[in-house]
Amino acid sequence: MKEHNMEFIHGGDVYTEGILKGRELIDFSSNINPLGVPKSFRDNIEEALSMVTRYPDVKYRELIGYLKQYVIGENSFNLSDNSFLLGNGAAEVIDLAISSFKKLLIVVPSFAEYEEDAEKWGSHIIYSYLNEYMEYDYEDIYSKLSEVEALVIANPNNPSGNIIDKKGFDKIINFCEENNKTIIIDEAFVEFTGAKEQSFIKEVDRYKCLFIIRALTKFFALPGIRLGFGVSKNIELINKLKKRQNPWNINCFAETAAKYVLKDKEYIYSSLKWIEAEKSFLPEMLRKIPFIERVYNTNSNYVLCKLKGITGEELYNLCMEQGVLIRRARNFKGLDDSFVRFAIKDRELNDKLLDVLNSIN
Amino acid sequence: MKEHNMEFIHGGDVYTEGILKGRELIDFSSNINPLGVPKSFRDNIEEALSMVTRYPDVKYRELIGYLKQYVIGENSFNLSDNSFLLGNGAAEVIDLAISSFKKLLIVVPSFAEYEEDAEKWGSHIIYSYLNEYMEYDYEDIYSKLSEVEALVIANPNNPSGNIIDKKGFDKIINFCEENNKTIIIDEAFVEFTGAKEQSFIKEVDRYKCLFIIRALTKFFALPGIRLGFGVSKNIELINKLKKRQNPWNINCFAETAAKYVLKDKEYIYSSLKWIEAEKSFLPEMLRKIPFIERVYNTNSNYVLCKLKGITGEELYNLCMEQGVLIRRARNFKGLDDSFVRFAIKDRELNDKLLDVLNSIN
Repeated sequence: MKEHNMEFIHGGDVYTEGILKGRELIDFSSNINPLGVPKSFRDNIEEALSMVTRYPDVKYRELIGYLKQYVIGENSFNLSDNSFLLGNGAAEVIDLAISSFKKLLIVVPSFAEYEEDAEKWGSHIIYSYLNEYMEYDYEDIYSKLSEVEALVIANPNNPSGNIIDKKGFDKIINFCEENNKTIIIDEAFVEFTGAKEQSFIKEVDRYKCLFIIRALTKFFALPGIRLGFGVSKNIELINKLKKRQNPWNINCFAETAAKYVLKDKEYIYSSLKWIEAEKSFLPEMLRKIPFIERVYNTNSNYVLCKLKGITGEELYNLCMEQGVLIRRARNFKGLDDSFVRFAIKDRELNDKLLDVLNSIN
Repeated sequence: MKEHNMEFIHGGDVYTEGILKGRELIDFSSNINPLGVPKSFRDNIEEALSMVTRYPDVKYRELIGYLKQYVIGENSFNLSDNSFLLGNGAAEVIDLAISSFKKLLIVVPSFAEYEEDAEKWGSHIIYSYLNEYMEYDYEDIYSKLSEVEALVIANPNNPSGNIIDKKGFDKIINFCEENNKTIIIDEAFVEFTGAKEQSFIKEVDRYKCLFIIRALTKFFALPGIRLGFGVSKNIELINKLKKRQNPWNINCFAETAAKYVLKDKEYIYSSLKWIEAEKSFLPEMLRKIPFIERVYNTNSNYVLCKLKGITGEELYNLCMEQGVLIRRARNFKGLDDSFVRFAIKDRELNDKLLDVLNSIN
């Protein structure tokens, strides 16, 4: 039943239904920080323009320095430049990481790209499903590890917003470390949890089995800039993946953005303040909508809902009539058309969404 | 003898010897249009910034429209959107194109990346060498075609600046068309020839065997933006390569640049005027330098020279002492350290180069 249509898999209706038709839509299908382009990037756009006539440093020495400073933060561990794998968006990093393993355990429902990539490379996939609360089933994951070379898991997970419980994960991480299995943790949304200790970056120091994926895409609202990166102390793996990459895969605007936004304390502070407030507000209000049967707890900037008495398709069309684009969740493995996902935006837009939903009753 | 050092293969000394040491160098090693960032891009940078918070259209429908308009120009043929393969720089397109063929004929000396990619994918390579005038040996190329699946050739070639003579190439193109061989033509520098009819874009309409690679990198002075593309009527090949790509591989700054610079008549006109003048001036003056034995005819914005009585290394060091970075050509297959390549820049900088070279006598 899987549809092989890039646009369908990745959302993108904002183009087909909106931009290309000259129609303005409020996009609740895409999970981007509503605070928009960090001013610190905008203010330094001239610097990027001054670099654009030069090839980037093929080793990206300065860029890696900015990323390193950001992920290490106040932690007291070291990471060598060799621990970083730079990608033209997290998409490249995910694809490269997944391509190395012939047998993968993917926790689902999750980002469809994991599966797509695994299939592209002919890898064998087995699945662990979230439980009924849309939380990780650690026992199930653990029981399947011996069958695979790598585990792919997100923290927080998309579309459900659940995070990895470090205690529950302990047995898994130790087993993988001892048995030469790799754990690919996609942390594209980790900043939205509001808790630095939630990330597994710190654990990279102790566990060579970890391969963490981060990006500027979501929290810094820069999907158009294309910058993702992987971090691991498994240097052989990093080097193997690097050899497969093309030179100059990061553009100079991404380099400049990383230089400034990652230390933009004001942007980071305002974003954390916004998400803290709205992450409780929107789900709470959604719970009052009669045709929403269940609102799953989220630790990120989107919220998964199960509908009743209305399908995802019907709700999508009704919202679209009012200029609001939502994300049907039927293409996430394990979900069907009774699930939809809403991005969490700023209060004004969240209220707008609630108005639209309430008008549908 | 091949050194597997990215920096060495791709130049990049401007970072190691210059930028990262805080030293300003005049970079004659990199072949970029000295007119710099087109004003039409700079003037519309706000448009790119307004797009950066959205994922790009995963199908890049508008971008393909701009590219199509540019390459078709006044020609009266049609190209479907499906004939375009977009790359994060020409590097991605070259890599993808080369990866499809198990046996390749590469004309050398040429851009080292062709070989690097072929080796990465485990392809078998045979070579055709330029003749003593650094021109294509069409008979030799023709005689080797039956042994391979694809021919890789540049137009103009780098580092020698020679172009494909369409008459001489006729037999080759017809043989390939009839025998299902692919011809990958790297036209990254084709605009510098100053003659639109030099490109093989028009021939794409008639010859399915052609796969043309273009980029914004050189002529529009945008190496930092990362945009290259392939054009072919071999849709099966294009589709096969697309399936291997990651989604959103082009950033929004590249999209905006393509929208404006490709129809920037003023920039194009000034660039053609500049290159026409300097392409005869610099080589002519270089012919007067006593330690340059031979200056090869060039149709591009760089000029290959054979030295006498001094090695490339010695000349490199002497120029570096005066803040001028040149390109030793020893890592181009078939050349040795008696060859160097100079970029052609504007008159002021070309004079500066000549001053430095004359001071060395």
